Amino acid sequence: MAESFAPLNPPERLLMGPGPSMVHPRVYQAMATPIVGHLDAYFFQVVDDVHKLLRMCFGTTNEFTMAISGTGSAGMEASVVNFVEPGSKFAVLANGLFCDRLTEMGKRQGATVIRLEKPWGETFADDVATEFILREKPNVVAYVNAETSTGAHQRGKAICDAAHQVGALVIADCVTSLGGMPVGVDATGIDIAYSGTQKCLSCPPGLAPITIAPHAMEWLRARKSTIPSWYLDLRLLDQYFGSARRYHHTAPIPLFYALREALCIIHEEGLENRFERHRRNHLAFVAGIEAMGMRMQVAEGHRLWSLQTPCVPPGIDDGKVRKFLLDEHGIEIFGGFGPLAGKIFRVGLMGESSTEANIQRLLGAMKEAFAAQA
Amino acid sequence: MAESFAPLNPPERLLMGPGPSMVHPRVYQAMATPIVGHLDAYFFQVVDDVHKLLRMCFGTTNEFTMAISGTGSAGMEASVVNFVEPGSKFAVLANGLFCDRLTEMGKRQGATVIRLEKPWGETFADDVATEFILREKPNVVAYVNAETSTGAHQRGKAICDAAHQVGALVIADCVTSLGGMPVGVDATGIDIAYSGTQKCLSCPPGLAPITIAPHAMEWLRARKSTIPSWYLDLRLLDQYFGSARRYHHTAPIPLFYALREALCIIHEEGLENRFERHRRNHLAFVAGIEAMGMRMQVAEGHRLWSLQTPCVPPGIDDGKVRKFLLDEHGIEIFGGFGPLAGKIFRVGLMGESSTEANIQRLLGAMKEAFAAQA
Repeated sequence: MAESFAPLNPPERLLMGPGPSMVHPRVYQAMATPIVGHLDAYFFQVVDDVHKLLRMCFGTTNEFTMAISGTGSAGMEASVVNFVEPGSKFAVLANGLFCDRLTEMGKRQGATVIRLEKPWGETFADDVATEFILREKPNVVAYVNAETSTGAHQRGKAICDAAHQVGALVIADCVTSLGGMPVGVDATGIDIAYSGTQKCLSCPPGLAPITIAPHAMEWLRARKSTIPSWYLDLRLLDQYFGSARRYHHTAPIPLFYALREALCIIHEEGLENRFERHRRNHLAFVAGIEAMGMRMQVAEGHRLWSLQTPCVPPGIDDGKVRKFLLDEHGIEIFGGFGPLAGKIFRVGLMGESSTEANIQRLLGAMKEAFAAQA
Repeated sequence: MAESFAPLNPPERLLMGPGPSMVHPRVYQAMATPIVGHLDAYFFQVVDDVHKLLRMCFGTTNEFTMAISGTGSAGMEASVVNFVEPGSKFAVLANGLFCDRLTEMGKRQGATVIRLEKPWGETFADDVATEFILREKPNVVAYVNAETSTGAHQRGKAICDAAHQVGALVIADCVTSLGGMPVGVDATGIDIAYSGTQKCLSCPPGLAPITIAPHAMEWLRARKSTIPSWYLDLRLLDQYFGSARRYHHTAPIPLFYALREALCIIHEEGLENRFERHRRNHLAFVAGIEAMGMRMQVAEGHRLWSLQTPCVPPGIDDGKVRKFLLDEHGIEIFGGFGPLAGKIFRVGLMGESSTEANIQRLLGAMKEAFAAQA
């Protein structure tokens, strides 16, 4: 192979899209620390710290709280393949891309998937969700706490209460909320919650935090039907990362080092302080957007603090704006998907990316980008 | 949470177990390089380089050659869930732990799994494998090219020839051979080969290299039955990492930086030189073991260059030896599994770990460990 390969030399980016977010130098340093083996006693100390710190972020005392060796989507798949059985009834509250992905995964398990639909960017009122669940009596209910495709925040208390009334388990997608907004797994009554590392935890992508309530683990241990995934079988993962320390796969050790460091940074900042920072910067961003004469896609009171979705102003080509921001300022933001394609920008204010200085830099660059199209 | 967390401070290890292996400082540096987004044009340049360099290591021109966002076991699962259908006949050549794992995964797909068995550490002669395959006429045949649990090397040409005679696809586990021994996917006729990054590629764990022959991809594109995994659906991954660049999941960018760097190091060393280094150091290790009056578990001519399995001498407690090596010398080696538990040591001479100096250091430390039990 005569071809030559240039040294790695990526461009500098200010990551303000819907993830990955900026990563603290301490996290990069941890990730580059020479590894120990995947069954080394030190590695399990790191794993135990990760579990403790994830419980803090999730707001739970669930013993089963861990990081799965795959990205946030592997966390979603683990939730579905373990808890949605063939022939069962799987109810999805559908208002964005990640609800559609949950639907697709449920169908692949051979479940009957029933959906309560809302336009992308809207959320489900308590009484509407409750009526649907009590009427349909599903085995499992899934909703997306933080819809990364729309910027909508779905609260879960009424959903969980109704689900438990009919004996259903609740899966909540917390990919874009964990570490940036209160998730409150125990207070809300969520049975299964998963996330990713590259959003508000400000760690590179590659692991999927997940937490399971004890009664859901009991259900899983008693499950009779085959789980089609060996890699994501939570009973086997429990034997590796739990107290048995039994070999399952070779965990990506540097990502665990990185996640531990990112979680330590959160612990040092204080979770409440971190939430308040995300809330304050979200409000500052919205104020800035409205001062530019733009409006937000999601109604006030239902917006994520971590992901902002300002509407693309009339006559503006969102693709050109994003290209200008990337080429001229090295800033990454994203556009909309599906029904929101061309209609919204998606701006992440997550973890390290959520600072006043970044907001000013971005808003200034957006003004330039709009002017270039005038 | 009042608890405090000490700074990350792992012990120094010389990794000479069955993986992970030692990692070059350049690879750590690449991994700690600030990331770009998972849909950034620069990221796809990195992905393309990884694909090219993996084709070199696999010995293939397969267009579909990529790294999956999970560990080597995810590569195994991707191979099985995509190519082993419910109700199909799946033949496994079974002589170690990873053959058992393939069996388990095949059963989870609802396939009829038939096994040709050999004691752990032995291999299948060409005529025996051929007769089995021609008689059973399976849909898919799987074998382990490099059995990490035993140190046995299984050649594949006769297996692939027989499989193709009956129209079966062949899956080969190359986790412990890729980058350290010739795999020769095209020359052997392997249809689906997967590996991990943390063995002879000397990259941290977290990605699974995989390559699929064009006619196997055609079969997959025409497959009618549902693939129960969305995360590992190779048709969807092809749309992300292939030319369409369509979002699927958020790839673990630092692991791709690390893998590219590790593969560049292989490219600079030259694949043939690297194989020769692994072969030479394997022979030096065996000579050293035999000079100590010990014998090897696997018969000459069937041994892996990358993973050595010397037998535990009579009267020696292998667990105490391993503890001594770790505590007194910071050297990690492993013991045996299952039928070989307590009977063998498993010593990796993979990638950066495969050096004369490491061999001398380990053999010296083993002598001390044995003396401590005398």
